Amino acid sequence: MDFFEKTISSEKIYNGKVINFRVDTVKLPNGDTAKRELVEHPGGVGIVAVDDGGCLLLVEQFRKPYDKMILEIPAGKMERGENPEICGRRELEEETGYAAQRFEFLGECYPSVGYTDEIIRIFLATDLKKTEQHPDEDEFLNVVRIPLEDMYRRVMNNEIADAKTVIGVLKAYIKLNQDKK
Amino acid sequence: MDFFEKTISSEKIYNGKVINFRVDTVKLPNGDTAKRELVEHPGGVGIVAVDDGGCLLLVEQFRKPYDKMILEIPAGKMERGENPEICGRRELEEETGYAAQRFEFLGECYPSVGYTDEIIRIFLATDLKKTEQHPDEDEFLNVVRIPLEDMYRRVMNNEIADAKTVIGVLKAYIKLNQDKK
Repeated sequence: MDFFEKTISSEKIYNGKVINFRVDTVKLPNGDTAKRELVEHPGGVGIVAVDDGGCLLLVEQFRKPYDKMILEIPAGKMERGENPEICGRRELEEETGYAAQRFEFLGECYPSVGYTDEIIRIFLATDLKKTEQHPDEDEFLNVVRIPLEDMYRRVMNNEIADAKTVIGVLKAYIKLNQDKK
Repeated sequence: MDFFEKTISSEKIYNGKVINFRVDTVKLPNGDTAKRELVEHPGGVGIVAVDDGGCLLLVEQFRKPYDKMILEIPAGKMERGENPEICGRRELEEETGYAAQRFEFLGECYPSVGYTDEIIRIFLATDLKKTEQHPDEDEFLNVVRIPLEDMYRRVMNNEIADAKTVIGVLKAYIKLNQDKK
């Protein structure tokens, strides 16, 4: 059964640099109305980059919502209408200084389906070549190299919480171990 | 290196039923200032419930941000100060009509570290007993039973996008297959 919610009205609350915020009034399947608080996001890309030695290229960044440094796969926001793979290749090179010969799709991630429309496309990048790192001016990050095997263990020990990183590491680890067989 | 961002000022934009929205002005490591658009969320719980036959209990709900029905593990928002396991047990029973004898922590999930402070705690629930389903009044959902093995395959085929569901299914599948050995 489809519980479609018809939008009755939509109120724009804030148009930001990264996200917009709006509140919709919807009609529920039982005829009642309800408010939906909604975040609009242009979408992003996350890249699981594995070098020839089996190491992951990760970045550590300060993340204001948690007020701490967080270890993540390289990632970035998409420009309107941009191709996700092109965005992923650019972000990987900007943040880590590596370009990938192979780019493989690992799926879409809906981070929190109740209130945000963000879609994060996750890619597996291999056959890496060193180029040059050039982060955005207001981007401060540490590049960290960790064996994929170790990151997989940290994920399974519940030491990594960032959703795109957990999903990317698990899918890449399973995939690369299947390909070996 | 820690790239701590000191909050200079904080502007509350909207206080909602599920989320609040605010914009902070922060001082960057290079001395510049920047805006941070931030969503405040009380946190949630997701439950990977596996019955004795190896089937997952899932729910299908209409999700306004994507304007479609989405297949998810049962989940819910935490009340302020609530214990995550108690919240998880309540949500599982409300949404599916099952209570679990065993509840095991599968880790925290930060859905989108750039703008929301939400933390989703994921649990594995087993030894299920039938009780009674009683969803909230404004909650409309279909309960769906799918073999864990099938859901694992769908996740690896990139057919499932909801972050908590992807993470819960992968971790539970890996864990339960390790325990078997």
